[in-house]
Amino acid sequence: MTPNSKRNDYNQSSQNALLPDLPKGPLCIYREKSSFSWKELLLFLEGEDMIIFKKRIFSAFENDPLFAHHPGEELPIEKYRELNFLRCKRLFEYDFLNVREMIKNPLKIFMLINCLGMYDWSLSIKYFLNIYVISGSQRHMHFIQKTLNMEIFGCFALTEVSHGSNTKAIRTTAQYDPTTQEFIINSPDFEASKFSIGNMAKNATHAVVYAQLYTPGGQCHGLHSFVVQIRDPKTLLPMPGIMVGDIGKKLGQNGLDNGFTMFHNVRIPRENLLNRTGDVTPEGVYNASIKDFQQRFVASLFSLSPGRVSVIGMSVVNLKLALSIAIRFSATRRQFGPSDGDEIPVLEYQMQQWRLIPYLAAAYALDHFAKTLFEDMIEFQKGLLQNDKSIRQAELGYEVHALASAGKPLASWTAQQGAQECREACGGHGYLSMNHLGDIRNDNDPNCTYEGDNNVLLQQTSNYLLRYFRNRHQDKTRIKTPLESINFLADFKDILGQKFMISRVEDCMDSSVSLAAYKWLVCYLLRESYEKLNQERKSGSGDFEARNNCQAYYCHSLALVFIEHTVLQRYHEYTHQSSIPAPLQLVLSRLSALYGLWSLSQHMGVLYQDGYFSGEQAGKALPSLQIFVFKQLKDDAVALVDVIAPPDFILNSPIGRANGELYKNLWTTVLQGKNVLERASWWAEFSAYKPTIGSLTSKL
Amino acid sequence: MTPNSKRNDYNQSSQNALLPDLPKGPLCIYREKSSFSWKELLLFLEGEDMIIFKKRIFSAFENDPLFAHHPGEELPIEKYRELNFLRCKRLFEYDFLNVREMIKNPLKIFMLINCLGMYDWSLSIKYFLNIYVISGSQRHMHFIQKTLNMEIFGCFALTEVSHGSNTKAIRTTAQYDPTTQEFIINSPDFEASKFSIGNMAKNATHAVVYAQLYTPGGQCHGLHSFVVQIRDPKTLLPMPGIMVGDIGKKLGQNGLDNGFTMFHNVRIPRENLLNRTGDVTPEGVYNASIKDFQQRFVASLFSLSPGRVSVIGMSVVNLKLALSIAIRFSATRRQFGPSDGDEIPVLEYQMQQWRLIPYLAAAYALDHFAKTLFEDMIEFQKGLLQNDKSIRQAELGYEVHALASAGKPLASWTAQQGAQECREACGGHGYLSMNHLGDIRNDNDPNCTYEGDNNVLLQQTSNYLLRYFRNRHQDKTRIKTPLESINFLADFKDILGQKFMISRVEDCMDSSVSLAAYKWLVCYLLRESYEKLNQERKSGSGDFEARNNCQAYYCHSLALVFIEHTVLQRYHEYTHQSSIPAPLQLVLSRLSALYGLWSLSQHMGVLYQDGYFSGEQAGKALPSLQIFVFKQLKDDAVALVDVIAPPDFILNSPIGRANGELYKNLWTTVLQGKNVLERASWWAEFSAYKPTIGSLTSKL
Repeated sequence: MTPNSKRNDYNQSSQNALLPDLPKGPLCIYREKSSFSWKELLLFLEGEDMIIFKKRIFSAFENDPLFAHHPGEELPIEKYRELNFLRCKRLFEYDFLNVREMIKNPLKIFMLINCLGMYDWSLSIKYFLNIYVISGSQRHMHFIQKTLNMEIFGCFALTEVSHGSNTKAIRTTAQYDPTTQEFIINSPDFEASKFSIGNMAKNATHAVVYAQLYTPGGQCHGLHSFVVQIRDPKTLLPMPGIMVGDIGKKLGQNGLDNGFTMFHNVRIPRENLLNRTGDVTPEGVYNASIKDFQQRFVASLFSLSPGRVSVIGMSVVNLKLALSIAIRFSATRRQFGPSDGDEIPVLEYQMQQWRLIPYLAAAYALDHFAKTLFEDMIEFQKGLLQNDKSIRQAELGYEVHALASAGKPLASWTAQQGAQECREACGGHGYLSMNHLGDIRNDNDPNCTYEGDNNVLLQQTSNYLLRYFRNRHQDKTRIKTPLESINFLADFKDILGQKFMISRVEDCMDSSVSLAAYKWLVCYLLRESYEKLNQERKSGSGDFEARNNCQAYYCHSLALVFIEHTVLQRYHEYTHQSSIPAPLQLVLSRLSALYGLWSLSQHMGVLYQDGYFSGEQAGKALPSLQIFVFKQLKDDAVALVDVIAPPDFILNSPIGRANGELYKNLWTTVLQGKNVLERASWWAEFSAYKPTIGSLTSKL
Repeated sequence: MTPNSKRNDYNQSSQNALLPDLPKGPLCIYREKSSFSWKELLLFLEGEDMIIFKKRIFSAFENDPLFAHHPGEELPIEKYRELNFLRCKRLFEYDFLNVREMIKNPLKIFMLINCLGMYDWSLSIKYFLNIYVISGSQRHMHFIQKTLNMEIFGCFALTEVSHGSNTKAIRTTAQYDPTTQEFIINSPDFEASKFSIGNMAKNATHAVVYAQLYTPGGQCHGLHSFVVQIRDPKTLLPMPGIMVGDIGKKLGQNGLDNGFTMFHNVRIPRENLLNRTGDVTPEGVYNASIKDFQQRFVASLFSLSPGRVSVIGMSVVNLKLALSIAIRFSATRRQFGPSDGDEIPVLEYQMQQWRLIPYLAAAYALDHFAKTLFEDMIEFQKGLLQNDKSIRQAELGYEVHALASAGKPLASWTAQQGAQECREACGGHGYLSMNHLGDIRNDNDPNCTYEGDNNVLLQQTSNYLLRYFRNRHQDKTRIKTPLESINFLADFKDILGQKFMISRVEDCMDSSVSLAAYKWLVCYLLRESYEKLNQERKSGSGDFEARNNCQAYYCHSLALVFIEHTVLQRYHEYTHQSSIPAPLQLVLSRLSALYGLWSLSQHMGVLYQDGYFSGEQAGKALPSLQIFVFKQLKDDAVALVDVIAPPDFILNSPIGRANGELYKNLWTTVLQGKNVLERASWWAEFSAYKPTIGSLTSKL
């Protein structure tokens, strides 16, 4: 499904039936000024089918008391986890997405993850960690069956307390015993305990445990995954030989119970080995089901990419939520003005626009990237299921992996910084928990860490680029990849010869200008990194040390610049389609232009460094062009937020409500607070106080 | 007291008595490699007297059960606030700092604020909001007396729900009634209620309320402050006509009770007007005690600067705490290595150094700035108390105000970004609440907002610079200010003529190189901002609009670059004193060099823009020089953290303990968790589940 299929011939009345008008109020001042219809843009971006799908989920939650909010109520973690579990259980009954729909439009999986997450990430993650954890072969269907019936509950146990990024160094062991045809799972010591595992602390009955597989004779066959029962589903008490517990409170996502486990001679049937990459015969002979290393590598990518691609979408959701709150607040919060009498909305201030509007452009550009990359990943997964052994399939695997490994850092960091900026842009009201910006930021935070630490992941992408670059040096064959993300590298000599030319401002108001600059940046940093790496090697560093010495500035920037280019490239092409309804063309191309200019301005130094930029005008152009676009977008900002904001019930932020009644909404919620007007339970402690002589005299 | 007075002749044994060795453990590997003694550096920076003062506070807390930590325990807000109140009450008995000591060494006030804050910001802020809130004249001494005896409890009520930054627009009224010689305090509507006021929700008995003063005949004399009793100290119940309540949970600092108040015809005695700037006679005639406007303006600065200067120090404390945790973690966390067998500490990775070590340099440079600016402010306050009417005193007021207004944004943002970087640098363990990085980040967050929103404050500083620049254009008199922060502007023509020249790397390893670049940056951006502002005015914009259109990029960057220059200037001079003990010279000058290079590299684009930088070498120098310094500083990082880290009890972070036993410390705390090994109280909900047919079939 392409994101813009058959959505234009759509009449007003059916539009209003699908998308009712937003409540009247102070925000109308801006809504009336917007250059486009938010309903038309939403229909264009998501289509009727997807909008109906989202509405089904959101209204189910809004109408179910189990999902009701409890303003002012303090939820103890134990209670929150129980509620989160009951809601997760309820999802099995709602059954929002069945297999038929899933296959018809896989993007609905993406949308389901994010709709649940807009309500509460603890719920979304708990649900998906459970239902997607077991992916084995035919002999494991009964596990999947039981999971879908919620007879068992799963978790994914890879990380150990002393090993996260370096998965090779995982120390849990699985020793095969042919006499009983069982694996014996052991944790050598507490430093090798499984740690931070979602669903494990209280809930999971079964864990997919990653362990080093040993066959008789003591030969190690490397990391494999095994289904291990850790609790009795009837009692939720631990199984023999298993110590399982709670790692405690986190900075966010506290509805999700993260736990630890240690295994002491835990015996599991041979069949519990998830034999995707290798298997063991009853006699204890190891067979790698995938002989060819490259194929096995691609297979391992398969298990990593989906998580990372999902995190990109999750991060974009957080950015959208934070912006919905901050921009509606900025459009209704008035402070200062030309004369003391009339104050103007803070959204009218250049600084407020400078702080928020670029993130709005980023949310739109990254959202498109997240969706399209998800579709690319689905294509790759289909290939795997069809056992496609073609080179293209392998290359697709590498490319999705490279895009996901840099896309996750870019998206999660943009969301983290954006959420913080939104918090600050709402001042003291942004610091109030009820306005939700804290949860958004704190729940987004782990997106920078799990599924691979951002800084570690970026190396995967720079390695991918350097490998292609090296090959290109060896044979002169044209660079061409399935998703075409690096095809432009073929012309890298010509690209490096180019210079930034601005004639008239109008010419720079198209993202093609930033796109050209980005191509130059990627080529320049790729050449620099390549030379730096060779130079390090020549100077006698081992491969490990050489790579390490090239990370900061070189490879790190290379990976980020490359992914920014890809995001911009995809959004540029998307926003310049002829199929875009005329009334939407202008606003979409402005978002694309702003995202390009804003991202690019972080790299001004490098652009000047080797002469792509020269003279004062080039440097001044980036900020002044952005300010120029703010003028065009500020009156569209509220409507752009109406497109991406979930219903008020889901957004759950008084200062971010669609009616824009900032202070009325705030007060209603404040007065829902617990004991809001009551004196402290400890009031007597105050009047009880008798000053000691000491503290008196010393102060006089 | 200059920070380096008489501390060098200090023998080993008395040193060890004052500063015992840190516990042995994995961190010794780095401690033994450090180029200096952490004890010697600490003594040089703070001196024996101050170290003893800090020890007194910290050991009092560690030995008092009231201040004990409760690992794994979830503290409900009501309970946390009670505990915080009881601890605050206990501070009156501890009486750490009496008036005599305070006068002898005012820096101890700064140190007390920060020592309490290192333990818990809720406590520090609660305590100081209370004791420093009432600053009136002789007739208010009884209030101060009662505060110091804790017979009453104070809060500072300026902000209203719809007005924070724009204090002029505060709408609470104080109408004088000569018949009873009282002021009648009113909140016109709920949008004018006092809001977010610390100590007000549950605790305060008296509030310093800012209101528009009206005399009979309806004349308004502008904003004045009044002491209003809001609760009965015996019962903590509200006084008649007062609606006082709790605004609810915040993202952090939840031991502090922030509240709201509405006034309905609340009558207070005439004498409760804090008559610093003006007074009202019994008959109802208003007299401005300070006639001259400039003097009155300086007097109002007096009330603002101390808060902002304090926030600078508070932010630096948060940065120090976060770095203590992240660097000790990085020195003991091992991941990957040249060969699979031996893994190396993550601190050895260039990326980890790139992420953390610059913040370590920033913490040292900003700490020096915070202390010296605090002393400048004390000098200014003394002048006020001595009723100094000199021009120098007025200029000192402006200058302290300008430095505090940009210093607060720089320090609070650096701490916010630094704390987030530290959280991410500790991966999943950094996301665990017990490791404390979340509290540090969340408690620091409001430093960006209260005492003036960072982005609004920066305008005060750019206005200050532009005013001097305009005057300089008018009369050619030499620019000279009491703190000499802008004296260099006198040579701005010559400075703008300069270029960046690098010959040998060694020459760039001194902060003088960055300092010269910063002088150029300030002059360039000042000229640019000045011209942009004039151009805006010429094009017919009113003053309000003209200023607004110059904020992003121009004035905003100008203020930041100026304050970065000031911080670097002060630290450069400090680290280049001949009085520095030889063993400390090298490490201190490296910190100064790194802070300069790191801060400067954010402005590379502008440095190139007008030709201060040219050619590839200049741009490459900044990153490569930093990487060069990392090599020199990485082995000193742990010792540098030993200097700034509080005792383990205060730091309260298992992964940040001085013994470096990362996993042992972590496990001890995990196992303290509540019900850590128990099954969920809601276990039966799981086994109780019976799948509905619907959800079954749809998935098959």
